[in-house]
Amino acid sequence: MPILGPNQYGKAENRVVRITRDGATHHIKDLNVSVSLSGDMDEVHLSGSNANVLPTDTTKNTVYAFAKEYGIDSAEQFGIHLARHFVTSQPAIHRARIRVEQYAWDRIEHGGEGAHSFVRKGQETRLAQITYDGSSWEIVSGLKDLTVMNSTDSEFWGFVKDKYTTLPEAHDRILATEVSGRWRFNWTDDEQPAPDWEASYEQVKKHLLQAFAETYSLSLQQTLYQMGARIIDNREEIDEVRFSLPNKHHFLVDLAPFGLKNDTADGAVYFAADRPYGLIEATVLRDGREAKIPADLTNL
Amino acid sequence: MPILGPNQYGKAENRVVRITRDGATHHIKDLNVSVSLSGDMDEVHLSGSNANVLPTDTTKNTVYAFAKEYGIDSAEQFGIHLARHFVTSQPAIHRARIRVEQYAWDRIEHGGEGAHSFVRKGQETRLAQITYDGSSWEIVSGLKDLTVMNSTDSEFWGFVKDKYTTLPEAHDRILATEVSGRWRFNWTDDEQPAPDWEASYEQVKKHLLQAFAETYSLSLQQTLYQMGARIIDNREEIDEVRFSLPNKHHFLVDLAPFGLKNDTADGAVYFAADRPYGLIEATVLRDGREAKIPADLTNL
Amino acid sequence: MPILGPNQYGKAENRVVRITRDGATHHIKDLNVSVSLSGDMDEVHLSGSNANVLPTDTTKNTVYAFAKEYGIDSAEQFGIHLARHFVTSQPAIHRARIRVEQYAWDRIEHGGEGAHSFVRKGQETRLAQITYDGSSWEIVSGLKDLTVMNSTDSEFWGFVKDKYTTLPEAHDRILATEVSGRWRFNWTDDEQPAPDWEASYEQVKKHLLQAFAETYSLSLQQTLYQMGARIIDNREEIDEVRFSLPNKHHFLVDLAPFGLKNDTADGAVYFAADRPYGLIEATVLRDGREAKIPADLTNL
Amino acid sequence: MPILGPNQYGKAENRVVRITRDGATHHIKDLNVSVSLSGDMDEVHLSGSNANVLPTDTTKNTVYAFAKEYGIDSAEQFGIHLARHFVTSQPAIHRARIRVEQYAWDRIEHGGEGAHSFVRKGQETRLAQITYDGSSWEIVSGLKDLTVMNSTDSEFWGFVKDKYTTLPEAHDRILATEVSGRWRFNWTDDEQPAPDWEASYEQVKKHLLQAFAETYSLSLQQTLYQMGARIIDNREEIDEVRFSLPNKHHFLVDLAPFGLKNDTADGAVYFAADRPYGLIEATVLRDGREAKIPADLTNL
Repeated sequence: MPILGPNQYGKAENRVVRITRDGATHHIKDLNVSVSLSGDMDEVHLSGSNANVLPTDTTKNTVYAFAKEYGIDSAEQFGIHLARHFVTSQPAIHRARIRVEQYAWDRIEHGGEGAHSFVRKGQETRLAQITYDGSSWEIVSGLKDLTVMNSTDSEFWGFVKDKYTTLPEAHDRILATEVSGRWRFNWTDDEQPAPDWEASYEQVKKHLLQAFAETYSLSLQQTLYQMGARIIDNREEIDEVRFSLPNKHHFLVDLAPFGLKNDTADGAVYFAADRPYGLIEATVLRDGREAKIPADLTNL
Repeated sequence: MPILGPNQYGKAENRVVRITRDGATHHIKDLNVSVSLSGDMDEVHLSGSNANVLPTDTTKNTVYAFAKEYGIDSAEQFGIHLARHFVTSQPAIHRARIRVEQYAWDRIEHGGEGAHSFVRKGQETRLAQITYDGSSWEIVSGLKDLTVMNSTDSEFWGFVKDKYTTLPEAHDRILATEVSGRWRFNWTDDEQPAPDWEASYEQVKKHLLQAFAETYSLSLQQTLYQMGARIIDNREEIDEVRFSLPNKHHFLVDLAPFGLKNDTADGAVYFAADRPYGLIEATVLRDGREAKIPADLTNL
Repeated sequence: MPILGPNQYGKAENRVVRITRDGATHHIKDLNVSVSLSGDMDEVHLSGSNANVLPTDTTKNTVYAFAKEYGIDSAEQFGIHLARHFVTSQPAIHRARIRVEQYAWDRIEHGGEGAHSFVRKGQETRLAQITYDGSSWEIVSGLKDLTVMNSTDSEFWGFVKDKYTTLPEAHDRILATEVSGRWRFNWTDDEQPAPDWEASYEQVKKHLLQAFAETYSLSLQQTLYQMGARIIDNREEIDEVRFSLPNKHHFLVDLAPFGLKNDTADGAVYFAADRPYGLIEATVLRDGREAKIPADLTNL
Repeated sequence: MPILGPNQYGKAENRVVRITRDGATHHIKDLNVSVSLSGDMDEVHLSGSNANVLPTDTTKNTVYAFAKEYGIDSAEQFGIHLARHFVTSQPAIHRARIRVEQYAWDRIEHGGEGAHSFVRKGQETRLAQITYDGSSWEIVSGLKDLTVMNSTDSEFWGFVKDKYTTLPEAHDRILATEVSGRWRFNWTDDEQPAPDWEASYEQVKKHLLQAFAETYSLSLQQTLYQMGARIIDNREEIDEVRFSLPNKHHFLVDLAPFGLKNDTADGAVYFAADRPYGLIEATVLRDGREAKIPADLTNL
């Protein structure tokens, strides 16, 4: 008889918005929360018995109830409350994984009264994944859809040439990518003091942007490593970083047929291509630590 | 024999990026340009003769060549150069419509040298549509994907009740929408002084955000009208505004089954719904002017 | 004071599935229904009074209730029930427009009992738009996302060359497009016998596919006209057809640098491009009739 | 100094279409091919030296050249050619992973000459992942976006109730999901006879559809297991199957407020919900084999 292998279940993409009021000043947290549970789940697969199954609908209700009961200090802290609850309250559930997408909002500046008007920032989506097995925690935070560009200080040459190579060497090109990154914290135990999740996120984002901007790049791999190394060097709460960086190609358009010289000196014109694209993926680790973030970054 | 009706053709979604250098400081324009031409085009439809057809590939080349020759001062000005060119240089082409999407970038702040590092702002997409028939211009600018929210100061009551009505009245609700707007300029003639397209866009965006924030709302229609009226009242270069505003419903979650009171006083929890959604569409006009923006806003 | 122009409102994207049972054999209708109403709506925009406003939530309820009460014979017939209801039951509503997307399902062939298992067909999305002003009907049906290809019998040459033209002439190319089409019926009056909406849709789809396949093409415009003309010639219930046809470019890859001849004789290899793309849009009419379908096809 | 962890690079989403001609009858293969290479890549990350880097542009060229040289018998066979080439021809490359999406086309039936007209089938996307490390192969095939529904023969009851549980038990519900599946072959060695990749795919799809249709379901987990077990039991070339099955909820609409009884007896009306959704993921294995497909299915 075929064997049941690894499995998990839960309610995905619970969209929860919490508004707190400090007089006329409102604050907003806007999350998309996904719950995955695993444990003694053989019977539901083999015979259809739901005797061990907490319904996914209940996990949804729990997300909304906990947003009220505990508030949402941070995506990470909210996920910790949820994961702990499922594992400690349900004997059949041995492991809970909570994934969160978070959307940022800015205030709308205006001349009226109150401070309860917001415009969605619309830049990157913040990510958090909280996993708990009843004894130790794994917290991986991240972001996706952060598009960046250096319009110079990027080269690409000295590469291998085989019979299928036609690419010319480049000594001044655009380097652009849409950053997808994940970073794993070394906090694993309730006895340790927890990081300041909000401050950590802001600092990691600042460091990766600055490393991208400040690296004179001979390859996107080199830039990726610098971005990861900057985080490891500056944020002691983080042991591992993984990036997936599509090389968003910008090709200098050949305008010679129209009698135009298209060089970088005075206003270069580029074609921004869609597909195909280079894809560079790598992990950067604190010395002595083990890589645990999976090779393929998913949308948490 | 079936008759040929209105028709147009061209190359859509030419992605053009132009980088200009002012010493170590770079500037970026990032556009998606679509060309649509019409005129004496019966034969290509009826017999397949391309004798009057400027290839869509040529219109693409023209976009890139003009980005070099004329630069890109604004989406509107760039479209004016293109539209004029097609209508005046091709006898068979009597009308050109250029549509532009524009993506904004912020500078990355960092400690290195130079200013050539950018992060895509990621908020709204700016839009422009330029139409020329050889004698007069129609310029419609706009934006899409600008998500805004008021977390209070919105009510909805006093509505019609029929046998299918179950909605309770609301006296303190979230009002959220994803703004899609278009506004038509009264500049139509090369003899008139042209508006400052860049300044106009920034001011229109500011006014619509402020009107959204400052309106105590009894209906999304009322808020829409105030957003349009604010623009007409403050921007004399604009005669008409049309908005398409989905009502992004945020439902207060019923937490009573869990012994929790979910009211707005101290941290309300909402479910952000996807579908269905209310959809409110209307035009606001300067008195005495005619509505010309089509009922259905397309993605330009 | 700024003037209110054309406006409408309603609930968009009501996802309704209806299952009917004929013994162990089930039947499915799967729709996405959007309601837009207009009429005496000045006050809701100007003062926020909802005294004339049937809530969008009520229009949603009506969609589900009518699916039960009237069933869903066809998207068009269902829309007719809804539009008539809103206009005749609400004094302030003078015009209703119902848009429907319909998704097709095939039966799963299997050896078990019953016939209640389905797999979504996943090809085109069927569209219908029903508009009623209390006296006459406008019914526009359509489809989108139907991707077709001729791998030969397409040429493109004899076109205009200007200084920006670099395209070589082509005498054997791939012609591929993603069909978006709309067709308007000449049924406008309850006194006329209504078309068989289901049969009409199947026949129109058949004719447009066959015309695409059977036309030796000198331009995509020619193919478009043939597709429209075939429908007008064969379907007397239809007076007008409009297509929006992106030219999904397939470029023959230059393999000469690798010592390979890439011609059509024995296995040509193409690069399927994303953007930019040619975009061909035109209306084909029954002689003597007027074009009413808007220039820009929206997703109904 | 931070350490470089697992890494790979290559060109993603090379869109390749190959047309072969058998007289007037044409055949089409339509693929999206992504290449990922890894090996001695420390230097490109640490110093930016590209001395070991075959450019991603070269991997793109290789995809197109191989489509000409070897043809495309199947996605799997095509990937095997590519992976073997990169690992055996480049000393620094120790492992190649090729991912393929494949789109199916049907012939358009028509009365003209030739058989070179196609309509994209538009149902599931076929997937293949080929990995080679110079000595052994791992082939994982799959599909995504195959939407299926049973309109009866599904129940859900007898589940755990905690303080957050409000879900009523269900004894006749719709069960619908969008199948994403991957299956791993036990072919790993060039010395073994390779499976018939095309026939295998068709059979696996048939078995999973039939298992879905024929299982009287007490939980989606039970249905998932049956789908996997059917494949393991019937296809000896496959050792492991993993499914990710979103529970596409269809809620019976409460029409009682309108005096309507909405039950399954004569035409039930459902609301098809978007988010949140249950998500059920599990692996089914041949006895004695090890689970190797990662927990999170990516879009290959």
